[in-house]
Amino acid sequence: MLNVTKPCRIIGTGMHVPTAVASDTIEAKHGLPVGWSLEHSGVDTRHWITTETVAELGSRAAQNALDDAGVSLTDVDVMITAGGTSDQHIPSQAALTLALMKGGDQARCQAFHVDTTCLSFITAFRLASDMLQDGEIRRVLVVASEVASVGIGPANWETMTLFGDGAAAVVLEASASEKAGVVKHSHRLYTEGVRAAEIPGGCVAKWVEDYAFAPELHHFQMDGRELLRLTLKHLPSFISNFFEDTGTLWNEVSWTVPHQASKTGLGVIPKIAKVKPDQVVNILETYGNCISASIPMALHHLMTTRGLQQGESVLFIGTSAGYSIGALLYQHG
Amino acid sequence: MLNVTKPCRIIGTGMHVPTAVASDTIEAKHGLPVGWSLEHSGVDTRHWITTETVAELGSRAAQNALDDAGVSLTDVDVMITAGGTSDQHIPSQAALTLALMKGGDQARCQAFHVDTTCLSFITAFRLASDMLQDGEIRRVLVVASEVASVGIGPANWETMTLFGDGAAAVVLEASASEKAGVVKHSHRLYTEGVRAAEIPGGCVAKWVEDYAFAPELHHFQMDGRELLRLTLKHLPSFISNFFEDTGTLWNEVSWTVPHQASKTGLGVIPKIAKVKPDQVVNILETYGNCISASIPMALHHLMTTRGLQQGESVLFIGTSAGYSIGALLYQHG
Repeated sequence: MLNVTKPCRIIGTGMHVPTAVASDTIEAKHGLPVGWSLEHSGVDTRHWITTETVAELGSRAAQNALDDAGVSLTDVDVMITAGGTSDQHIPSQAALTLALMKGGDQARCQAFHVDTTCLSFITAFRLASDMLQDGEIRRVLVVASEVASVGIGPANWETMTLFGDGAAAVVLEASASEKAGVVKHSHRLYTEGVRAAEIPGGCVAKWVEDYAFAPELHHFQMDGRELLRLTLKHLPSFISNFFEDTGTLWNEVSWTVPHQASKTGLGVIPKIAKVKPDQVVNILETYGNCISASIPMALHHLMTTRGLQQGESVLFIGTSAGYSIGALLYQHG
Repeated sequence: MLNVTKPCRIIGTGMHVPTAVASDTIEAKHGLPVGWSLEHSGVDTRHWITTETVAELGSRAAQNALDDAGVSLTDVDVMITAGGTSDQHIPSQAALTLALMKGGDQARCQAFHVDTTCLSFITAFRLASDMLQDGEIRRVLVVASEVASVGIGPANWETMTLFGDGAAAVVLEASASEKAGVVKHSHRLYTEGVRAAEIPGGCVAKWVEDYAFAPELHHFQMDGRELLRLTLKHLPSFISNFFEDTGTLWNEVSWTVPHQASKTGLGVIPKIAKVKPDQVVNILETYGNCISASIPMALHHLMTTRGLQQGESVLFIGTSAGYSIGALLYQHG
């Protein structure tokens, strides 16, 4: 058993995705060779919205997580929406998602939005675990919902075939027992990579009144080679620092639930971690990279296929635009 | 002395604003009667960017706060950017602001962005105070930076003359003494008001590729009458719940630092609170409503004009798009 620093417990998970889009449909539409998507981005199916919003995906995933936990929205003290995409500039995504939930108008929770792009769920989980220590907060609903598809275009086949839309949510509860909870969280921002993954336009810096839509401004730009360089440069020391005072090592962790960043990114993990591939949850092929929703979607997949036993540990880990690395080690109990 | 639930201490504040724009300049340009802005929105001068960004304003305010605290960026464990506006969709504003700071590339802090629109600073302060309880986090830099001016237009004279751009930052430090820190924080979202203040376009729900710039989509829309109705309906019970278990009353608080929402909004406070007007910090006339930056700008004004004495208490309070009400009671020591 590991030393839990912030007792809390996952009591429910849920997810929701829009319509599935098969790779061969995309390949046919854009004249890509058959099988290109699976070979290069590692994705066979992703899900893309037609008319849905971030709030719609998120509110349905949140309801599924509440149902799984057997609690209702009025049992929730804090709702945290997490993500790099949102429906409107104002109000916050937290307000928009809560407003769509059944009983949202009767909710008595506080609600806020947290953004560290792909690491938003990990950051929100950490903040939730902090809040659950204060004795007043009993339950926190964390909702990661992302619509990536509107901001991708055919100029970059890799991003177009890689990204999917989806949402997943987790209900966390305060725990009197120190058997369950957060063992450690770390997040580090390396500003040398601030331009390695971005949507440059659409907000204050290139406001839409002055800069009309242009693919190079409003479609996601990703320098995959630079992101890999940053990961290979910084991940090893991040990991050794992370595990230093935890009393464990990555290859002793029960389950690794990584961000589903890319085929290359996921492929690196078993090598660095020296963990068995079947201890690394991989849903890339069927869902693609859903930004911050990928990690809780992979957690939900783990929960519904294998379940999480008392005493098992889960390492949530990923990289994000920023450039950032984040990890959170959780022990179930 | 009040009962502090989360010990921590404000050790520095700083602010930064772009060029001042006088009301008579706006009135002349748009054919408004001379004196209209001061009479109707309560604003004589606000500050609007020319080429600056949210990150530029924020990074300068943050450096000023670090200088005031006598610490450097490497002494900071967590940077939280707070606000309803940001420079780009991706990466998060936290990455963009840190990247512009002197020594940002050497920072060892984690960094994330929090959004509850106008209440973002209060939410970030609360999260900072939670994080400062864990023994590992020593210092948190909270940076609220907002550029409102790009999203306002002449179709609504009140919003156009009311809003300003600006940034302010606070350095919070862990405290062994229980004399200083957060006494209480509350935040409540009332989804009935989700459409009362919004920018409907620009993000996923009305993506710029499908919805080109239009004032009704990309300029801030505010139903002032509805916001006042929501405030009069919900604020009294929010306040009585807030003070119930604090051992104090609003009129016993040393200083009220409210969101500089509007002339009407600020005018309501002394009546509801039964506090003397000179205990309510009011900088509306010289800065306008700077969204989430208004509260820390008002705090900085208090710090530099009167200072905060040991044992004095400050109530940060405001309303925001959402519709939300938030309050945080802090005791200095």
